Amino acid sequence: MPRIVDHDQRRRELAETVWALVREHGVAGVSLRQISERSGWSSGAIRHYLPHREAILMFAAQHIAQRIEGRMLGLKQTGDVLGDFLNLLREVLPLDSERRAESQVWLAFVGLSISDPGLADTQGVAYRALSEVFQGIFEEFTKLGLLNHPAPENAAREIQALIDGLNVHLLLNQITPDAAWATVETRVRQLIRPLTDQEMT
Amino acid sequence: MPRIVDHDQRRRELAETVWALVREHGVAGVSLRQISERSGWSSGAIRHYLPHREAILMFAAQHIAQRIEGRMLGLKQTGDVLGDFLNLLREVLPLDSERRAESQVWLAFVGLSISDPGLADTQGVAYRALSEVFQGIFEEFTKLGLLNHPAPENAAREIQALIDGLNVHLLLNQITPDAAWATVETRVRQLIRPLTDQEMT
Repeated sequence: MPRIVDHDQRRRELAETVWALVREHGVAGVSLRQISERSGWSSGAIRHYLPHREAILMFAAQHIAQRIEGRMLGLKQTGDVLGDFLNLLREVLPLDSERRAESQVWLAFVGLSISDPGLADTQGVAYRALSEVFQGIFEEFTKLGLLNHPAPENAAREIQALIDGLNVHLLLNQITPDAAWATVETRVRQLIRPLTDQEMT
Repeated sequence: MPRIVDHDQRRRELAETVWALVREHGVAGVSLRQISERSGWSSGAIRHYLPHREAILMFAAQHIAQRIEGRMLGLKQTGDVLGDFLNLLREVLPLDSERRAESQVWLAFVGLSISDPGLADTQGVAYRALSEVFQGIFEEFTKLGLLNHPAPENAAREIQALIDGLNVHLLLNQITPDAAWATVETRVRQLIRPLTDQEMT
């Protein structure tokens, strides 16, 4: 009987290794040799999953996207649509060390994507996934009559840009997490009227 | 009599060469050999100005910062403070090929800065220079009674983050220049009341 290999489990292990190395050395500094040393796997075994350099980098980016998506899906819906949206935004800002590490990977990819169309496509996927989430949420706010902006699509784009700009400024240590969060929260509370107690029941 | 060397002129020439190479190959792809080939200078002559790799990269970043600053200083003040501010914001968004190239360099640096503290310091300088400009402008708006926001510092931070986030999304081709500009203009016009004809005279 052939040995049973849990490929999903192996992929997860490998993703964690690549992610740790990207955090330590930057995206440009991750090599097959380092992955092999850290994971204890042979180069051949790693190449089975990650045949070339671009595959390693995309793999790490997808891993981050899945982590964030998982946390978002795990958020408890409270019925307070404004509070729920703020909770979701907290998951995509580097306000603690875990989310900071994710943002570092994201930003390193963004930087490399400028001169690498393959990576740029991966970045595009990451942007569009979050963009669709935001667009859907803002259309919902409009339907509920809670949006204080003439164009939901424009408002969603504004918040996504605000989040990504603050991501950059936080990672460069130019603003504090408190200041970044205050900026987001102030703007979102201007944009979205909270449900009244009557509307919530 | 010794040969007279115009060091400023040489620095400018070198900066243009480095900038062109960064645009073509990305920040990580610029080597001393390439600079030598492109400029026709010897490695020794280049090393006199740029003794190591980090110096090359910082040099390119400073060159971009100077270009942007020069354009900003050259803007005509019309007395329409809102219009003047919108003109200034247009200079830091990649809405045409020249500003797009500048933003590409900026974003490549941001990406590398994550794992390179020396570059991160240079980035910090670039952030703080623009941050001071924005803070000053928003305090002026407050004094004129034109700011529609409880905290000028927070509002300035919001606009800077919005600009940088849109920069990222434009460079990754996720939004159009028109959509980016509409997002900025809508938000700025919400934040800042225009002067009336009476107030302008």
